[in-house]
Amino acid sequence: MKTNGMEIADRSPESGGGLILSPDALRPARGLDRAGAGTDDAIMANPTGSALSHLECTHCGRTHDAEELHRLCPDCQKVLHPRYDLARVRLEPADLAAREPSMWRYREVLPVRDAEHVISLGEGFTPLLTAPRLGAALDVADLRIKDEGQNPTGSFKARGMSAAVSRARELGATAVAAPSAGNAGGALAAYAARAGMTAGVVMPEDCPRINQVEAVLAGADTWLVEGLIDDAGRLVATSAAGRGWFDLSTLKEPYRVEGKKTLGYELAEQLGWELPDVVIYPTGGGTGLVGMWKAFAEMTELGWIGAERPRMVVVQAAGCAPIVRAHDEGQRHAQRWPDAATGASGLRVPAAVGDYMILDAVRASGGTALSVTEDEMRAATGEMARVEGVHPAPEGAATLAALHRLRASGEVSGADRVVLFNTGAGQKYPDFAPADPPRLPADSPAWRDGL
Amino acid sequence: MKTNGMEIADRSPESGGGLILSPDALRPARGLDRAGAGTDDAIMANPTGSALSHLECTHCGRTHDAEELHRLCPDCQKVLHPRYDLARVRLEPADLAAREPSMWRYREVLPVRDAEHVISLGEGFTPLLTAPRLGAALDVADLRIKDEGQNPTGSFKARGMSAAVSRARELGATAVAAPSAGNAGGALAAYAARAGMTAGVVMPEDCPRINQVEAVLAGADTWLVEGLIDDAGRLVATSAAGRGWFDLSTLKEPYRVEGKKTLGYELAEQLGWELPDVVIYPTGGGTGLVGMWKAFAEMTELGWIGAERPRMVVVQAAGCAPIVRAHDEGQRHAQRWPDAATGASGLRVPAAVGDYMILDAVRASGGTALSVTEDEMRAATGEMARVEGVHPAPEGAATLAALHRLRASGEVSGADRVVLFNTGAGQKYPDFAPADPPRLPADSPAWRDGL
Ligand SMILES: Cc1ncc(COP(=O)(O)O)c(C=O)c1O
Ligand SMILES: Cc1ncc(COP(=O)(O)O)c(C=O)c1O
Ligand SMILES: [Zn+2]
Ligand SMILES: [Zn+2]
Repeated sequence: MKTNGMEIADRSPESGGGLILSPDALRPARGLDRAGAGTDDAIMANPTGSALSHLECTHCGRTHDAEELHRLCPDCQKVLHPRYDLARVRLEPADLAAREPSMWRYREVLPVRDAEHVISLGEGFTPLLTAPRLGAALDVADLRIKDEGQNPTGSFKARGMSAAVSRARELGATAVAAPSAGNAGGALAAYAARAGMTAGVVMPEDCPRINQVEAVLAGADTWLVEGLIDDAGRLVATSAAGRGWFDLSTLKEPYRVEGKKTLGYELAEQLGWELPDVVIYPTGGGTGLVGMWKAFAEMTELGWIGAERPRMVVVQAAGCAPIVRAHDEGQRHAQRWPDAATGASGLRVPAAVGDYMILDAVRASGGTALSVTEDEMRAATGEMARVEGVHPAPEGAATLAALHRLRASGEVSGADRVVLFNTGAGQKYPDFAPADPPRLPADSPAWRDGL
Repeated sequence: MKTNGMEIADRSPESGGGLILSPDALRPARGLDRAGAGTDDAIMANPTGSALSHLECTHCGRTHDAEELHRLCPDCQKVLHPRYDLARVRLEPADLAAREPSMWRYREVLPVRDAEHVISLGEGFTPLLTAPRLGAALDVADLRIKDEGQNPTGSFKARGMSAAVSRARELGATAVAAPSAGNAGGALAAYAARAGMTAGVVMPEDCPRINQVEAVLAGADTWLVEGLIDDAGRLVATSAAGRGWFDLSTLKEPYRVEGKKTLGYELAEQLGWELPDVVIYPTGGGTGLVGMWKAFAEMTELGWIGAERPRMVVVQAAGCAPIVRAHDEGQRHAQRWPDAATGASGLRVPAAVGDYMILDAVRASGGTALSVTEDEMRAATGEMARVEGVHPAPEGAATLAALHRLRASGEVSGADRVVLFNTGAGQKYPDFAPADPPRLPADSPAWRDGL
């Protein structure tokens, strides 16, 4: 099957047909896929060429069948990672240039086998913007902002949900659910809607208003709870069997991280197959950071990049910084953060199931972990918008606040190439940084004299 | 110069370098542009290959110098259109496949001459999503949604502002301003910020909260007025001289429409150089519709498409439908709509300077104009989100509401290929369509028994 899949990739529609960002975009123009298909392919409308081979536990190392729906490792209850038969991937970096500008350009290293099962709203391949004026202000020679606000639903959560909903549906799930700090709920609802699946979303009652609205409008059964995201997670777990939900809690199933790992592939592709010196990532559950770390390893194995790695920097909010504390204390697992509080709702994650994976990556990379205050985030929101025209989510602003600190301490040098992850659109947060423009009444002299 | 520009285009960075969506992306890797440059080029750091030749009045037909800052036609005060020396454009559709996924992929037919002057946040080349389930519900065989919510600042206004701010700056402006129904103000503020220019934004006091916040955070001098967008426009006009602003009011300067016209180029490219049968466009000032119409003519002249045109459909809100009324009454100019009122803030435009251009295009195309109610827009917001996972701006929802009417009347047939323009992200409008998920208190039995 893989051989045939690769063949399809070579005859990809981008070379001939229009660029239509939808499952169609993955579809060869004239059904070439069926001709010469192997036995496995005979039942597939349109193979993606995915080289997915099995699931491997990140803790105990045991392997599991990737063609079954799995969540955590059945043996040790830790995180399962999909593994690929990378030696058989014949895709070359140069082949990517003409592919569709979404994360599905990397389909050989994504888990969905049949392109008909890809649920896409055009997520990924977001701009890696230069930030020369901000770089000058912070005395950083090469500063970039990965603008994830330009994703469907306005946040990078679209990537994980596109991968996980697609794969869950491919493996037979008909209903999906997740707890969410906010954006993941909106993304889950949107992708489940597009897939024609039932969805359940459970969120803290004080999560941003727009996240509540987007989940409900997209048709998800939605509840608000007195509590935090891990409380919401318990409710999803308790309810899953009764409701027939496949539980997509972050890192508690193997495929959201696969969508997020495309951040790492994109960094490399957009920098000409080099990696930056420093990556600053706002960390809640940490899926994006864990995903990038996995992508780097895969790309090295593919021969697309060398062994060098960026220093991975975790940013959290001062009001909820379990990973930072564990990092400071030299622990591999983090303790739950009591009374978690921050306006950066995506960072209000008191406990992360992938804590050891985050901490391992930070340490292996020579990176660090630090927290920033609400005031620092608010100031950085305005600074990024005013200086580079990028209005960040509070979580994105946290990365800039962190860079200020790291420049002051010298942990980031002026010669480093630094990437900030703006994980969401500031346009989803009308209340985070206050702004009250003056109002001119109908009898203002300005109407005659000018402003 | 044009010859050299074309040469540069052939050696475009996409073939060699990384895809970095910023002015860098337009920059040849090794300064090839300077070698062999003509006299004009000698002063340009990096020619785009723009074939811009002059400005032409859409009403009196007189021509004007494109190297000077112009607004309306100095002779008759009507709209000026940039014209290009299309015969000298050597770009072919097939060359586009490997270019960066932003509207600047069409740089030969855009007005900026020096790539160093391009102010980009990665705008354009948004997904043209299939909408098979919505198509089935409305009995339309081929239905698509152009998702403009995935632009920087969350609306298609980014396109016009990227082009206009870039070109104004290239021609020497240092401060820009515009009246706005909401999204244009946010986009203007962001692009001016990125350009390092001073910006002024004047908006109705009841425009969406997020538009006020995004303009202020991006550093624009921002005012709210008791009145509508045309009142705001008078205030900008009165104040421009005193404040040193170049006034970017829509269609009152020649270049915002150039950014918007890329919508037309993208439709053709994404449909394999065919056009759809029907385009449904939510019309305020009408710049996008006028721009697409211009793009179609340019592409025909370039030999990229034939003479066929989609039927262009104008949608307005029942509470502000000046173009619809003029269309119904057979007029070429629209009368100001009194007491304009609609929650679709972008459609609350009581008078459009380009009314004759909108109406000409609608009629020449065999299209139509219709209005929809607030309730229809609200229902369509939920329908698009629930059925296809695309949470639209109210204006985008209006296009779906219009399609319902046009299917009922038979004006759109089940065999038509139809494109709906979702011009903004629904995530900017937490208050348009109400949604109130249930709250579970800490003592709810659901914690034990499940939801
Ligand atoms: C905007 C934003 N940034 C960052 C995060 C944290 O992401 P992760 O859970 O991958 O660490 C979230 C999570 O909700 C988010 O919504
Ligand atoms: C989301 C949205 N859609 C449509 C429009 C109308 O656009 P145009 O002025 O090009 O007709 C606007 C204008 O503000 C808008 O913000
Ligand atoms: Zn295990
Ligand atoms: Zn004229």
